[in-house]
Amino acid sequence: MIREKIEQAKGILKEEGIDLWVTFVRESEVVGDPALDLILGANCTWQSAFMIPAEGEATAIVGSLDVSRIRETGGFEVVGYTTSIKESLLEHLDRLKPGKIAINYSENDCMADGLSHGMYRLLTGYLEGTPYREGLVSSESVISKLRGRKSAEEIRRITAAVELTEEIFSRVSTFMRPGMTEKEVAAFILKEVDKEGVETSWERALCPSVFTGPESAGAHAGPTDRKIERGHVLNIDFGVRVNGYCSDLQRTWYFLREGETTAPDDVLRPFETIREAIALAAERIRPGMEGRAIDALARNYITDKGYDEYPHALGHQVGRSTHDGAGLLCPEWERYGNLPYLAIEENQVYTIEPRINIPGFGIATMEEIIVVRPDGGEFLSHPQRELFLI
Amino acid sequence: MIREKIEQAKGILKEEGIDLWVTFVRESEVVGDPALDLILGANCTWQSAFMIPAEGEATAIVGSLDVSRIRETGGFEVVGYTTSIKESLLEHLDRLKPGKIAINYSENDCMADGLSHGMYRLLTGYLEGTPYREGLVSSESVISKLRGRKSAEEIRRITAAVELTEEIFSRVSTFMRPGMTEKEVAAFILKEVDKEGVETSWERALCPSVFTGPESAGAHAGPTDRKIERGHVLNIDFGVRVNGYCSDLQRTWYFLREGETTAPDDVLRPFETIREAIALAAERIRPGMEGRAIDALARNYITDKGYDEYPHALGHQVGRSTHDGAGLLCPEWERYGNLPYLAIEENQVYTIEPRINIPGFGIATMEEIIVVRPDGGEFLSHPQRELFLI
Repeated sequence: MIREKIEQAKGILKEEGIDLWVTFVRESEVVGDPALDLILGANCTWQSAFMIPAEGEATAIVGSLDVSRIRETGGFEVVGYTTSIKESLLEHLDRLKPGKIAINYSENDCMADGLSHGMYRLLTGYLEGTPYREGLVSSESVISKLRGRKSAEEIRRITAAVELTEEIFSRVSTFMRPGMTEKEVAAFILKEVDKEGVETSWERALCPSVFTGPESAGAHAGPTDRKIERGHVLNIDFGVRVNGYCSDLQRTWYFLREGETTAPDDVLRPFETIREAIALAAERIRPGMEGRAIDALARNYITDKGYDEYPHALGHQVGRSTHDGAGLLCPEWERYGNLPYLAIEENQVYTIEPRINIPGFGIATMEEIIVVRPDGGEFLSHPQRELFLI
Repeated sequence: MIREKIEQAKGILKEEGIDLWVTFVRESEVVGDPALDLILGANCTWQSAFMIPAEGEATAIVGSLDVSRIRETGGFEVVGYTTSIKESLLEHLDRLKPGKIAINYSENDCMADGLSHGMYRLLTGYLEGTPYREGLVSSESVISKLRGRKSAEEIRRITAAVELTEEIFSRVSTFMRPGMTEKEVAAFILKEVDKEGVETSWERALCPSVFTGPESAGAHAGPTDRKIERGHVLNIDFGVRVNGYCSDLQRTWYFLREGETTAPDDVLRPFETIREAIALAAERIRPGMEGRAIDALARNYITDKGYDEYPHALGHQVGRSTHDGAGLLCPEWERYGNLPYLAIEENQVYTIEPRINIPGFGIATMEEIIVVRPDGGEFLSHPQRELFLI
């Protein structure tokens, strides 16, 4: 898969008119660059330059002690050095004579922002007085396309992760009862994860997240000792990594009160509204649209029904990690930088995850996963159609 | 421990004449800043600023969905935002009016280089037109002192990790036999690690590293299918993390040939030379010396005996990770930047790890751990005195 991605990168460099892409890192276990997952799948110790040209051989310059290990990864011609990387680096650049050189910094996309500021200063110091100093540009568009455009094999792997997540959701549905704590529910899910021999999609302390009732944090928090009560809306945010690819799904449950056979209208209506907003977004998404257009569609659908807007983006890309590719279905908020304006591309894989706070009950939210096709979004998940009643 | 380190940081800021230390991060699970391990012990999602002033309350500005989780870490007053961090950040700075503001970039020390270049551009963009823009300095000296100066509790934890590592080394001594592969030896060690319920100090693929015989990579490589043969010198580089603190030790074995009752002189002499170089370095190290002086002492001792110099530093600091604190016992090579010239401080914990390549046999190397005391280095490890014979 590493070689496949390096070849794909060369094509994207040509498309973008960039001559060379340099990933410049050191001690990558401590301060990692997410680009290494795509093109190397290993760590390096001393200052190292991983150079992929639009034309020609990919070359890595690494510390002498790393040479044999980096060579084994298979994607690069490897050159070792002992005292300083500067000479080998300049020699190699003089051979290639690149005009535009992409390096990994981005104000918008953390996935393309693996170059530390100290390493940036080192690199520009090495290049001072050469024409290459002026050729430096952001690799944002290269990395975004490289991550976003999923191959058939990548989509198969994401689908496998989605299916296992859905299976574990159905097991937890038969496990949960009023009186249990969020932590007990999370522990059950983690036991299933371990039983399946897989990893969680993000850190275990927050994966799964379990939120029950009206006073829960609602997002980005670990499970607490809060107990499930009758009349609670409960949601779970969870995913697993299978063969290096992630899922990220949310589901919503309602705990019936004495005498209830279904949820109250105050719970059912927001649930239905989310379901419809998701269906609308999936139906209308097309390659070439900007992410903000799809976000606005779902956001307006929800506010038109009289609910508050969700305080986050409608969806993000998933793949090797739960934020895999810059393109985001998000509103034009300052903190999203240029992300709302990026074009949606075919074969990108997005979550769709609106939420509605239901005062007195809890938070309803579903998160589905689609792949972008020429004629709309194809669901990789099986969308939740009914509120799960317990 | 988080609060203890935040308090310690305030003292160091005063010492360094810095008014405020800002750790500015986003999606820290993807592009982490090693400073977060010291002052937060958690991850954040949106752009977040963790601000520790020389005087007053530590404050964190984080995305609204992260507020409750970050508050639970206990070290910071937490302020949430939804659309952009800029306003809250500037408001807070206007209240503090800091002159010198330390941010996490460093050309020399990756531990102080957690600020990505994209985040640096965002931050300087937010500060444009304010006096704070001109007050930005590197937090290198702050982080180096904060990491390097170990408390008694930190030294106890490192010692516990060292002792467990030595215990596992003694188990592997009774396990290894000629004919086994490096991978089999590594698998045995990892089984012991799992049995003890601890983690390896660095990534499992390289921890332990096992190198047998004259053709081995010798460092920074995973174990291979190479088989141990009689007449091989074998070394293992290994450590465990116990209660958040690491060890990092190396030991050397020799596999006796038919009829041998001890190792040949060609093996014994370099082994003794390493042992003596370590003892010399530990005896002569003092607070206030520069790291390069101790490196030179050991390096010259070895080359004076007619052996090649080791192609790396004599030693690095250990603690929360295997490179914990900038000060390094290293030669004046360009790739080490200013590290050779940093002052050694009391209560820093260093490895000492020279090596000698023995043509035809393999690589002899020991790695010991010392804590710097006013009158020299105190060993936390039990230095290897005799070559282990199997």
